[in-house]
Amino acid sequence: MQKVAILGIGQTHIGEQWEKSLREIGGEAGLAAMHDAGVEKVDALYVGNMLSPLIDAQNQLGAYFADWIGLWHKEAVKVEAACGSGAAALRAGIMAVAAGEAESALVIGVEKMTDKAGHDVTAALATAADADYEVEQGVSFVGLNALIMKRYMHEYGWKHADFASFSINAHANAMSNPFARLHERISTERFEKSAMIATPINLLDASPIGDGAAAAVIVPAEKVTSLPGRPRIVIAASASATDTIAVHSRRDPLFLAAAYESAKRCYNMAGVTPDDLDVFELHDAFSIMSALSLEACGFAERGQGVRLGLDSAIAPGGRIPICTRGGLKARGHPVGATGMYQVVELVQQLRGECGDTQVAGAAIGMAQNIGGSGSTVVTHILKAE
Amino acid sequence: MQKVAILGIGQTHIGEQWEKSLREIGGEAGLAAMHDAGVEKVDALYVGNMLSPLIDAQNQLGAYFADWIGLWHKEAVKVEAACGSGAAALRAGIMAVAAGEAESALVIGVEKMTDKAGHDVTAALATAADADYEVEQGVSFVGLNALIMKRYMHEYGWKHADFASFSINAHANAMSNPFARLHERISTERFEKSAMIATPINLLDASPIGDGAAAAVIVPAEKVTSLPGRPRIVIAASASATDTIAVHSRRDPLFLAAAYESAKRCYNMAGVTPDDLDVFELHDAFSIMSALSLEACGFAERGQGVRLGLDSAIAPGGRIPICTRGGLKARGHPVGATGMYQVVELVQQLRGECGDTQVAGAAIGMAQNIGGSGSTVVTHILKAE
Repeated sequence: MQKVAILGIGQTHIGEQWEKSLREIGGEAGLAAMHDAGVEKVDALYVGNMLSPLIDAQNQLGAYFADWIGLWHKEAVKVEAACGSGAAALRAGIMAVAAGEAESALVIGVEKMTDKAGHDVTAALATAADADYEVEQGVSFVGLNALIMKRYMHEYGWKHADFASFSINAHANAMSNPFARLHERISTERFEKSAMIATPINLLDASPIGDGAAAAVIVPAEKVTSLPGRPRIVIAASASATDTIAVHSRRDPLFLAAAYESAKRCYNMAGVTPDDLDVFELHDAFSIMSALSLEACGFAERGQGVRLGLDSAIAPGGRIPICTRGGLKARGHPVGATGMYQVVELVQQLRGECGDTQVAGAAIGMAQNIGGSGSTVVTHILKAE
Repeated sequence: MQKVAILGIGQTHIGEQWEKSLREIGGEAGLAAMHDAGVEKVDALYVGNMLSPLIDAQNQLGAYFADWIGLWHKEAVKVEAACGSGAAALRAGIMAVAAGEAESALVIGVEKMTDKAGHDVTAALATAADADYEVEQGVSFVGLNALIMKRYMHEYGWKHADFASFSINAHANAMSNPFARLHERISTERFEKSAMIATPINLLDASPIGDGAAAAVIVPAEKVTSLPGRPRIVIAASASATDTIAVHSRRDPLFLAAAYESAKRCYNMAGVTPDDLDVFELHDAFSIMSALSLEACGFAERGQGVRLGLDSAIAPGGRIPICTRGGLKARGHPVGATGMYQVVELVQQLRGECGDTQVAGAAIGMAQNIGGSGSTVVTHILKAE
């Protein structure tokens, strides 16, 4: 496969952007990425989005954004894999460039989901689960994660407070990220006193939704000869894997098999091991997911992911810094956009643009985007050259 | 780009399949394609679908079908481009195979849309149009096509009856297609007496929706050395283009610019002209779309597409046979599946499996799938070798 590089990145603030339309939010990120890349046109557009048919009454986001951005007559399409849509769109773009079908591509992850009230959004998010065998039984998406977390605590003997470090780290890191939804440090005490949502998941175990978009321009790596003052960022590996759509169909609901598979393929492709990674933007939709991702990707033994948080290994100066710009927990989780936020933030780390949460000498990093309860997992490894 | 071949095809009957779930319908077509291809596994799955979040409360169809079919841990993703979703998913699969990311891929176009009542489906289909600037004004998707048809009749002086041949040809061709929704010959008289939906579009100008799925297995062409009793079917060209999402934004609403662009790219890629094509499976969602597609793809001058119908050029023995298995009009239009039905039917023509509507000596054909009012157009040229 032809090597692909990320030439430019863009992102919007995450929050309740009621004053902006869906097209304005996605367009803002897309145009910012093109500006950052120094290009006025691209050959193709790939849009990652999950909820626009349900919340914005809008389908066909490929043509929709190509029109708005001014990419008339270009190829454009939407890719959907629930909360894994962002990275899935990036992967579609990578394949187009790698196949020689596009000399350049813009990838936008976008979601505008706060215009509707709580119940509607909860129902819309539940479309990531199995409509017939999970949702029909009354379990929400948070509920499914709560069942997984409860089982994990029972199986490995962890207390709820042991998960606090994941949220504390994410909130601390978001303080210096101007695009983050939450700018608020939290403590273990506050974590423990936070309102319960679905036992044992409380408000500070869960990531907040939001309106936002993140984007990147990708090109064949050979076309990027030099960039003044910036390293060349190449996609060293890209892989996607799936697991059963329903959690109860899994032999072991505490093992993210698709995360394991896609990370393994990426390690092989990039020729690296977990030890070689300087930073890992993981999918902390709920604190339990941080633990399970760290385990599936080889950073901890089964049932020991929580220990990395307790040992401060996940902080910007630790062994494997995660959520360095706030993660889903504090940067926010505009679902179909999240995968692109992770990649954009990883590029910022590799460029050395992360200020207070910059990982010193970051040269290689991984981003992992999860759809459903681990049903679709898309992993990328980026390198600064 | 590495040449890709279609190794196997599968499809379900189109109709009101209330006794089958979404997963059973898509699974049936997918497994039929794998059986036809003689394979038990594929590397990746691409699903084309438009309405499942809105009608079936189910997202993440990649993982959903990979799970059901037994493609555990494989890559799987959904692609959406309104009614152009089916062919857009095929194109995503082609790029994965062409880029060397998959040695084989299954592509399924699927839609289950008759479980909900009329108003819900009309609203769901309207998500293909511009939510802010078209649908918000009260115009439905049929309404947009009616405006286009009315303008066309005014501009070029055609009467409503002049469009009859498109529907008559489609209904006649569907008679020998066991998968078709409608098995009913129609006459010009009946066409003219049919109930009005949105002037000038009446019931027999419009394609019926339905539940259905069509699928194909694709592999690198070089891997297909010989198939007993069958020609090798290669994808000679694949291209996608977009136009404005709203019809009113176009300089000329009677010209399908994205159809023109994607067909032009395909002609160049395959090294052919319209004269070389033996069959053309076009997107006759409404009879006006047949005329506009024929014009955009170079088979008729502007405003003269209707004449091809009047001259019987579109029948199986004519100059450019269209809708040879019934088209959207009579085979049926399960929106996200339609693009794959077109491709599957084209393969049937190139294999010589079409019985009464077989185009004699068909060796090269084109399929064109349209999303929205011409906003996304995906075109493929297939060749029998």
